[in-house]
Amino acid sequence: MSIDNKLQELGITLPEAAAPAGAYVPTVATGDLIFVSGQLPIKDGKITYTDKVGDNGSVTTEQAQEAAKLCAINGLAALKAHLGTLDNIKQIVRIEVYVNSSQGFTDQALVANGASNFLKEVFGDAGLHTRLALGLAELPLNAAVELGMIVEKQS
Amino acid sequence: MSIDNKLQELGITLPEAAAPAGAYVPTVATGDLIFVSGQLPIKDGKITYTDKVGDNGSVTTEQAQEAAKLCAINGLAALKAHLGTLDNIKQIVRIEVYVNSSQGFTDQALVANGASNFLKEVFGDAGLHTRLALGLAELPLNAAVELGMIVEKQS
Amino acid sequence: MSIDNKLQELGITLPEAAAPAGAYVPTVATGDLIFVSGQLPIKDGKITYTDKVGDNGSVTTEQAQEAAKLCAINGLAALKAHLGTLDNIKQIVRIEVYVNSSQGFTDQALVANGASNFLKEVFGDAGLHTRLALGLAELPLNAAVELGMIVEKQS
Repeated sequence: MSIDNKLQELGITLPEAAAPAGAYVPTVATGDLIFVSGQLPIKDGKITYTDKVGDNGSVTTEQAQEAAKLCAINGLAALKAHLGTLDNIKQIVRIEVYVNSSQGFTDQALVANGASNFLKEVFGDAGLHTRLALGLAELPLNAAVELGMIVEKQS
Repeated sequence: MSIDNKLQELGITLPEAAAPAGAYVPTVATGDLIFVSGQLPIKDGKITYTDKVGDNGSVTTEQAQEAAKLCAINGLAALKAHLGTLDNIKQIVRIEVYVNSSQGFTDQALVANGASNFLKEVFGDAGLHTRLALGLAELPLNAAVELGMIVEKQS
Repeated sequence: MSIDNKLQELGITLPEAAAPAGAYVPTVATGDLIFVSGQLPIKDGKITYTDKVGDNGSVTTEQAQEAAKLCAINGLAALKAHLGTLDNIKQIVRIEVYVNSSQGFTDQALVANGASNFLKEVFGDAGLHTRLALGLAELPLNAAVELGMIVEKQS
């Protein structure tokens, strides 16, 4: 099954890739690697998950998992705009999950699972990536989660 | 116009590349990629922008943009020491802009523009990179900004 | 001397590589690069250094250096499981040292030296890497340090 069909089966419609808010670009390819700019949990042009995650914040771990998944969806939109089709992705190499963490919140790995499980579901073994899960003090536009991605394309 | 001439036109003199403060090196090349160690806003051997950025800190967004640009200048100095000439840079692949953020500061993207706009000005399309903008709790030596870079060199 | 012998000489026994806590993998190879997932200071299955580093935390700089070294040891365990032998590492390309920083702690570079010095000791010039040292607000499982690694293998 193609990745496009798999996304359809999961009920996911990729948005138009967002235009960068500055003198940078959504993706850069070098050799077989594609680097993806930091993705925020934006839907229909608006950030849908803002503020800090955890007991001392207003975002729950479950909501932050949804935010991480939404970041991954936006990353795939950027990659589709670059590659034409997501079937040209050979492997998700690395994701970096930055969680806007309230004091004492230490479940960044659970939040990151929101992105990891989604990528595994969509790409199968090609979606098995390396990962960093980190607790940030602040994030742009007060987003609850930011996601970096590096993928390998088919040669 | 060569990159060296372009920098001259912009009134920018690259410093001597700083010696690392530990058992690491300023740059490592692997294939056509060059990774650059984290750069601080150092000028004439001293950190010129310290402390947190934002209303609850002592560094303004405008000053932090200058700090991000200074980090990028220092990154170019490291790359010039590695490559001999910056004309051998094919593409700025990724920058990571870590902003020492006071509570509630969420304009990390504006700060990052200080580095992004500078790289675009110097390298044109080859300076269009992917980017992460992140709000850190603390940075080494209390620097206001730290910058990571990955570039692609000419084969 | 082989890297395995060098580790033995240093009195270091690599642990079994830890199983990831989610839908991700310890390492992904792409071309000659190997990306390593974020490593925590785990020993015998338990995190041995937790809480924030610095005067306003409970972990000293010296303890955090040990934590950074332990993260690096765990990273080497993951790489050995991938490569069979660490002699197949051509170069440590980059390490990212994320320090769980208490307010006002700015010696992240000193903490990172705990990993840098260890890698230099084990690999010699092949262990000379680029580096980012960063102060995080929170880390998964309240770890004192998290470490990311990118290495180049022999072709």
